[in-house]
Amino acid sequence: PVCWSDQICLMPRRHSSLAWGAEQKLFFQSLSFSDFNSFASRTHTCGELGSGDIGQEVALCGWIQYQRQGLFVILRDFHGLTQIVIPQDESAAHLKKALCSAPLESVIRVTGTVTTRFPGQENPEMATGEVEVQVKGVEVLNTCRMLPFEIKDFVKKSEALRMQYRYLDLRSFQMQYNLRLRSQVVMKMREYLCNIHGFVDVETPTLFKRTPGGAKEFVVPSREPGKFYSLPQSPQQFKQLLMVGGLDRYFQVARCYRDEGSKPDRQPEFTQIDIEMSFVDQAGIQRLIEGLIEYCWPEEKGAITTPFPSVTYAEALADYGVDKPDTRFAMKVVDVTGIFRNTAVGFLRDALSNPGGTIKAICIPDGAKLLKNKDLEVLKDVSKSQFDQEVTPIMLRSDGIWKSPLNKFLSEGEKSELCEIMDAHAGDALLITAGQHEKACSALGKLRLECANILESRGVALRDPAAFHFLWVIDFPLFLLKEDDPGELESAHHPFTAPKPEDAALLYTEPKKVRSQHYDLVLNGNEIGGGSIRIHSSSQQRYILKEILKEDLEILSHLLEALESGAPPHGGIALGLDRLISLIVGASSIRDVIAFPKSYRGRDLMSDAPSLVSAEELKPYHIQVSWPLGSEEEAESSSNGAIQLES
Amino acid sequence: PVCWSDQICLMPRRHSSLAWGAEQKLFFQSLSFSDFNSFASRTHTCGELGSGDIGQEVALCGWIQYQRQGLFVILRDFHGLTQIVIPQDESAAHLKKALCSAPLESVIRVTGTVTTRFPGQENPEMATGEVEVQVKGVEVLNTCRMLPFEIKDFVKKSEALRMQYRYLDLRSFQMQYNLRLRSQVVMKMREYLCNIHGFVDVETPTLFKRTPGGAKEFVVPSREPGKFYSLPQSPQQFKQLLMVGGLDRYFQVARCYRDEGSKPDRQPEFTQIDIEMSFVDQAGIQRLIEGLIEYCWPEEKGAITTPFPSVTYAEALADYGVDKPDTRFAMKVVDVTGIFRNTAVGFLRDALSNPGGTIKAICIPDGAKLLKNKDLEVLKDVSKSQFDQEVTPIMLRSDGIWKSPLNKFLSEGEKSELCEIMDAHAGDALLITAGQHEKACSALGKLRLECANILESRGVALRDPAAFHFLWVIDFPLFLLKEDDPGELESAHHPFTAPKPEDAALLYTEPKKVRSQHYDLVLNGNEIGGGSIRIHSSSQQRYILKEILKEDLEILSHLLEALESGAPPHGGIALGLDRLISLIVGASSIRDVIAFPKSYRGRDLMSDAPSLVSAEELKPYHIQVSWPLGSEEEAESSSNGAIQLES
Repeated sequence: PVCWSDQICLMPRRHSSLAWGAEQKLFFQSLSFSDFNSFASRTHTCGELGSGDIGQEVALCGWIQYQRQGLFVILRDFHGLTQIVIPQDESAAHLKKALCSAPLESVIRVTGTVTTRFPGQENPEMATGEVEVQVKGVEVLNTCRMLPFEIKDFVKKSEALRMQYRYLDLRSFQMQYNLRLRSQVVMKMREYLCNIHGFVDVETPTLFKRTPGGAKEFVVPSREPGKFYSLPQSPQQFKQLLMVGGLDRYFQVARCYRDEGSKPDRQPEFTQIDIEMSFVDQAGIQRLIEGLIEYCWPEEKGAITTPFPSVTYAEALADYGVDKPDTRFAMKVVDVTGIFRNTAVGFLRDALSNPGGTIKAICIPDGAKLLKNKDLEVLKDVSKSQFDQEVTPIMLRSDGIWKSPLNKFLSEGEKSELCEIMDAHAGDALLITAGQHEKACSALGKLRLECANILESRGVALRDPAAFHFLWVIDFPLFLLKEDDPGELESAHHPFTAPKPEDAALLYTEPKKVRSQHYDLVLNGNEIGGGSIRIHSSSQQRYILKEILKEDLEILSHLLEALESGAPPHGGIALGLDRLISLIVGASSIRDVIAFPKSYRGRDLMSDAPSLVSAEELKPYHIQVSWPLGSEEEAESSSNGAIQLES
Repeated sequence: PVCWSDQICLMPRRHSSLAWGAEQKLFFQSLSFSDFNSFASRTHTCGELGSGDIGQEVALCGWIQYQRQGLFVILRDFHGLTQIVIPQDESAAHLKKALCSAPLESVIRVTGTVTTRFPGQENPEMATGEVEVQVKGVEVLNTCRMLPFEIKDFVKKSEALRMQYRYLDLRSFQMQYNLRLRSQVVMKMREYLCNIHGFVDVETPTLFKRTPGGAKEFVVPSREPGKFYSLPQSPQQFKQLLMVGGLDRYFQVARCYRDEGSKPDRQPEFTQIDIEMSFVDQAGIQRLIEGLIEYCWPEEKGAITTPFPSVTYAEALADYGVDKPDTRFAMKVVDVTGIFRNTAVGFLRDALSNPGGTIKAICIPDGAKLLKNKDLEVLKDVSKSQFDQEVTPIMLRSDGIWKSPLNKFLSEGEKSELCEIMDAHAGDALLITAGQHEKACSALGKLRLECANILESRGVALRDPAAFHFLWVIDFPLFLLKEDDPGELESAHHPFTAPKPEDAALLYTEPKKVRSQHYDLVLNGNEIGGGSIRIHSSSQQRYILKEILKEDLEILSHLLEALESGAPPHGGIALGLDRLISLIVGASSIRDVIAFPKSYRGRDLMSDAPSLVSAEELKPYHIQVSWPLGSEEEAESSSNGAIQLES
């Protein structure tokens, strides 16, 4: 049966082809030391020839992008486009025939002479726009069938179609740029880590021991009955063991796996830049990473400045209502509790009468002009359903009139104080909420982002797409209350995170108050990395695992033993490569920076993986399928069919 | 139950510690542009200080390797050893106490002043042997428990113990060197491919569609009932699709998976340098790879010369009886059929009377002196059991007497001709076999290697361990007879390999005779790489899959469609990284160049993976374990135990 829920949305491309042309030029300029023609049957790429090459005999290989009236062919490769002039004289009729009869996207090799174009026929938007090639020889290397879509960046196609014919989609300049930029960024990272700072690239296993209860780990059956490997979510244990092993500085561009089940828009496999070093503190790792980002940053994206600003988790929560603030715009959460100490507004008074009750607000510039009643309803719903927080809007109309359910209860003093503290002006909107600090901030943090989306959809330029705001978030709590059992604690990040030295004594008295040496790296409101200084004392690690987290020590006995065996102080970080690259290139999904991504529900639409495997083939692994009632026949019948596309 | 068959053998290290010292020095010299101390709480590594640093205040971090009579501590890190002088004056009693009471392998940080050693106390075998550090401050960062073995390269330990405590084993200079050299070689390869030749590093998925009948592919259950991903043996399909997608030049340091079941000494996951490029021919790939190896080759291993020599598969078989000849020594297989045209020796005459019958020989220098009767029995057994070939020895005793079952049947003419053609002298041994060309050559090829092992065990320096003989083997057959059904053909390598252009017409008439554009790269008798020019014509690919290999086209429909969609001519290669590095460092097993290898039978002895997973945890994947009869209780009881070591 066709599965509608796996439908992938239409996705417009962000870049206009003109902007791309300039970016492409800068990008390839930065690769000018590379020889793209070595060992190949061409002399130049299709993006390379210019007025300096006039008179040269050249050989080009590429795809026929376009053919015009038997006069010109535009040849394309990864590097660009070159205009090929079809000879018109009788003696070259066979060449003309070959060039004119080959369908678009056929692969050809042409030899010929570079000439200057007729005056007035130059194309300044084309890197090779001053020249053309007069053909002397043509080889049609492969002809192309009728394709399901044209290879032109401006042609819109559904993402499902792009995924099914990924090998065609990859021919677009945008995908070529995304993958090449990714390769380039990673290469620069390696130079920085390996060559400049003496890090060792170590490969760690991906067939590893299952974490008990590790619900997000794929299992891999072995040939021992009942025994399974699992695909790890990160090389965390291995990188710490490498430090115990004296490797000193480790990094890996590591493939990681996470089975998020039905969660949409997650890739079951993803890549992280995994780093660990010994004899380092938090500031050391932060400076290392700032240097790394600076070193690998693409020239065409403008300069970035280091060190990156830093906020504590508490500040991020108070100001932005979230642990990964997008600092490209203000609209900060403001504590207005003080204004309402003696308010007549009932629900605010009630909130303040509870211990820890607070009142928070955000100001949306021009919100009174731009937010519609329908928007306000949506915002209220979001706050109520996701945070159980009531939100009350105040519209400061341009005519000076306040429109709000609160209006008649607010004193003039409260109003003017509110305007002053919120820096609110006529035309703005305020959103007010009351309750516990964390919940109230979180709700407004969410509404802040929702409002930003709404304002941008109405044409306000709020977040500069060319701006890159990096931010460290530090001083996270070491533990959180367990969601399903608030009497117990769980690790905020993972159980190997070290407490801040000045809080370590609190472990034994008030563990809830302990702050950790964890740090997150945030870019434009997205978490792109996280790491920590690790525990290197076995007794501290043992205490946390056993007494605070109530874990079975047996499972981590090898790690505890390792900590007793001369473990150096160490710490590290992991950067999410897919997310980082997608932010750099401005892609709307990480699928656009992955060569062969999976669909929403983890399917490969090209080959139709995952697929049925016969009981016979499962035998060596001592497993059998538990078919849900009534599903077996259905499944078996579909195995006879061809590739089934979700559409 | 303890499993004896997974025992790992004792493995002596090849390098003496002295040779290592020199190698280490050269290796770190080649990294002189790296800053190993950035961002860390030390000023120098333990391998860095010399007479140029005298008078400097330094901070060192490391492990206590050795402590002598309260006078000195030897501090170790990845880079080397430094002598720390323990202060003896009363005022520094606390420092002395800290340094003397910390157990060996404890981690400390010392600050102090670099001084020259007393004349006569210099240690020329230690990189830092001219200096020592006068301690001013000591921090004991972590104390070490009693370890299961000492961290000294010359201390022999079982490999099982090394695997269980891999984090300790990694502290040996040899393992540090192996992993660091591996990192360095890969980094240089990347520079060559990415920076110099414009290759793009593209990551391909490891959760892919199962190849029907792909018995060596691990399966990964998905949350869709009955549907599985598989872990691919190589990114073959993806790299070809990338070429169709116009990526032009792809490489990846790719993790690959192969479930070899009970086959010993294979790693279930391994790494290959995976390369593919468009618009290239066989010679182009060969030159690319020669340049690659030359570029990444470690200085301390001496120069290598390119281009590498090349032999055809037919020549390799005829001369060395194998498709991966070790050309570091001669002892070639020689066809001596001509000598015995009219022989009186019955079994030779019989062999020649069969169509295609041949007689082959190898000459083992000094074999008559060094081979014992017991050796000859073993050699005959090997030939008989593995190749069904009888082998007859002739010992040319130093006193001129020939000792052989054939002796009395050989004419003087045959004897002298044999000596001449084999270049055999008194003291040598000849091994003679008769039969079909391929089988006879293969048997002698195997005996050639066996004899080399025997001679070396008797002290003959046959294969120089410092020599690196690279060799291309080309012109393989495209198809082989199926082992279990000799009426049918199967691909010699894989079905995407292109035929040699001059043989392409034979596809339709005599496919058995078609030679392929496949090439293997061999180093010292080990296959370290293989690749081919691929088929880019969909009709040729279709014909081979359907008419010759009798495959179901449906399964590869996406690849066939891709070939019809403007596929450029392309080819590539994959190099086995683990094997290559193990040959470079002279390791006896690839396990010595992998940070966390699996044991013979695919177990991780440190964490005890694979491990039992509860039925409950398997539920989301719709699978259950099929327990072999009577095994369930056993397995369940063992799950309660701690880590069970195979010993």
